[in-house]
Parts: sequence; C-alpha cells; structure tokens
Amino acid sequence: MEIKSENVVWHDGKVTKADREKLLKQKGVLVWFTGLPSSGKSTVSREVEKRLYEMGKLVYVLDGDNIRHGLNGNLGFSPEDRKENIRRIGEVAKLFTDAGIITLTAFISPYKADRDRVRKLLKDNEFIEVYVKCPVDICVKRDPKGMYKRALNGEIKEFTGISAPYEEPENPEIILETDKENVEKSAQKIIDYLKLHLII
Amino acid sequence: MEIKSENVVWHDGKVTKADREKLLKQKGVLVWFTGLPSSGKSTVSREVEKRLYEMGKLVYVLDGDNIRHGLNGNLGFSPEDRKENIRRIGEVAKLFTDAGIITLTAFISPYKADRDRVRKLLKDNEFIEVYVKCPVDICVKRDPKGMYKRALNGEIKEFTGISAPYEEPENPEIILETDKENVEKSAQKIIDYLKLHLII
Repeated sequence: MEIKSENVVWHDGKVTKADREKLLKQKGVLVWFTGLPSSGKSTVSREVEKRLYEMGKLVYVLDGDNIRHGLNGNLGFSPEDRKENIRRIGEVAKLFTDAGIITLTAFISPYKADRDRVRKLLKDNEFIEVYVKCPVDICVKRDPKGMYKRALNGEIKEFTGISAPYEEPENPEIILETDKENVEKSAQKIIDYLKLHLII
Repeated sequence: MEIKSENVVWHDGKVTKADREKLLKQKGVLVWFTGLPSSGKSTVSREVEKRLYEMGKLVYVLDGDNIRHGLNGNLGFSPEDRKENIRRIGEVAKLFTDAGIITLTAFISPYKADRDRVRKLLKDNEFIEVYVKCPVDICVKRDPKGMYKRALNGEIKEFTGISAPYEEPENPEIILETDKENVEKSAQKIIDYLKLHLII
C-alpha cells in the first residue's frame, strides 16, 4: 500500500473486531446494568471489573463519573436529554465493544425503549442486559448520597423510583437481586454468564 | 466489600489506567491526525493500526466511518455542529485512552481552538498531534471520492481547503508530508515516535 500524490488507496487493511478479540483472548461485549438509584449497579460493576482484571481480561466501566461530566456534560434531565444521554452511551459502548473490550455500563436507564435501542445497535450475543433488582424501599434506606431523601422532600424533581418511572426489563439476560444476595454473589453470576457463553 | 441492604459500599476498588497499561504492555495515548481532505489521514492511520496490531498492541481508529453515522449522526456541518463534533470525538478518545488503548483519530479538525480543547482534556504526554501536511492542489488531484470536484463546482458549500478554512497546527508533535513521503515512511515516523516515548 503506497500513497502517491494522485493515487490514494483508501481505508483498506482495517484490523477487525475478531483480530482484536484474538489478541485479547476474549470477546467484546456490552454488559448493560440497569436499575433504580442505589440498587447496586456501580458497586457490582466495579466488583466485576476487578475480578475480570485479575483474570487478565480488558474491561472498562462507563458510568456517571466518566460520562456525565465529559461526553454528556451538555445534557440535562429532560425526557429528550435523557434519551440522548442513553443514545450516546450506547454508541460509545458499541465502539468499546468493537474494540474487543468487555464493556460494563452502570446507568439507571429507566426506559425500555431507550435500552432496546441500544440492544439493536449491537449483535444478538453482544448485548447482555443485567437487571439490578432491588425494592425501592431498600434503595431508599441505602441512599448513600442522600438523593432519595432530597427527592422525597421535593428538592429533586423527576427522580426515578419516586417521581419518575422505572420500566423493568422484560427479558434481561441476567437478574441480580441485591436485597437478597451480596456483591460477591452478584458479581459471580456475571462472571459465570461470561464463561458459559465463551466470552472469557 | 459486601452489599447489605442498607449499607452500600460505593464506587471503590476501581481498576486504573495504569493497571490496564500494565496488562496491555503499552501506554494509552491519543494520536490525533489532522489535515485537509484527501491529505492521507485515514490511509496512514490504518497503516499504523495494522503495524501496531502486528506488534501485539491494542489500537483503535476513530474516523468518519464509525463516528459520523453513529455517535455524531445527529450533527450537521454548521460551525456549531463542527465544534460539537470534535468535542464529542475528543471526549470519546479520552475514554479510549483511559482504557489503555493506543487511539488514533482521523478527522479534518480544521480549527486550532477545537484541537487545543481536546489537547487540554488529556495529560501532556497523552496527546500526540499529527499534522498530515499536503498541498491543496495535490489533494485536489487525488480526490478519491470526487469531493473536491463537487466543492469546486459549488455543489458542496464550506468545504475545507476550498471554501472553508484549515488552520495549520503551530506545534504538532509530528508532521507528515504525504506529497513527499509514502505511507510506509509516514507510518514509520509514528511508530518511531511511540517507541522513542516508551509508549510501545
């Protein structure tokens, strides 16, 4: 392949997803955690991240910390902005997955339609929806950041679980019941799923 | 670390960029190709991608093919949208770099202020600006997609190099002169830079 002034060879010789997966000895997939605030999405995803790393796997977590102040820093919480928030996260996660990375996302993502749109961006076996299920009264008791309290006091409008809806997944690949199982158990379920499906 | 109903341990135990770099035996950096349409950005970046892959390195190219129809599919070509286009690419590239990946971006990115904004998102040694320098008359002769022809005929408005400005980088880390050197030479310059700076 040689560039000459008037004869540019365009875009050939791309390294593929399969090539990168071979290099990394894993499959690139998107593990999409969804659930109420304080249901345990971030905590479980960080535990899964740690375990996969210790197994020599390349894993990356997209969550509010690295998305809300960066890529989606120009979005608010209107229905339109929430939809665009999830759309962008889905597109970025698709790129990460294409890079061969085991990509974990931890966002409330309350609307089924938004989640299903992300599912459709990916191939069938690349999208793993994890419903982090926990009764809202337990989430209210946890409330590590005091957000439920503020929502219940009316200081935060349209707070998922209190004053805005959460639409449960109908057919998630995995359900975690974080009021009944500890984080080790929840993380192990994810690892077992990845092994069973030959992702790791 | 254990979740109990009312006692969630929050966000601890993150795997760091340094951890991932150790796993991958490389540094996560952003190699930002900028230059006129048809200057050779994509061609050189794909050659660099191929070479790095053959060296066992994890590399990913962000370009119009995977960004314009996905993440930035809701943006046009107004000055405001062009700015937002580069902002989002910068934020995504920052995440890829944080993941430990050698990230290559191939976008015209004609405005100095937009590129400098991306530079500031990253640490000093993480952003490598590559000016793909080629005289516009040579780019017009290459014109593999017939875009210059359409721009010169007035069919495309605000086409960089013809009817919209391109602001040259003042202090790029690397300059490639694709009218004088072939793609192998250009790619080798990038590889040499990465080796010299202990990125690979």
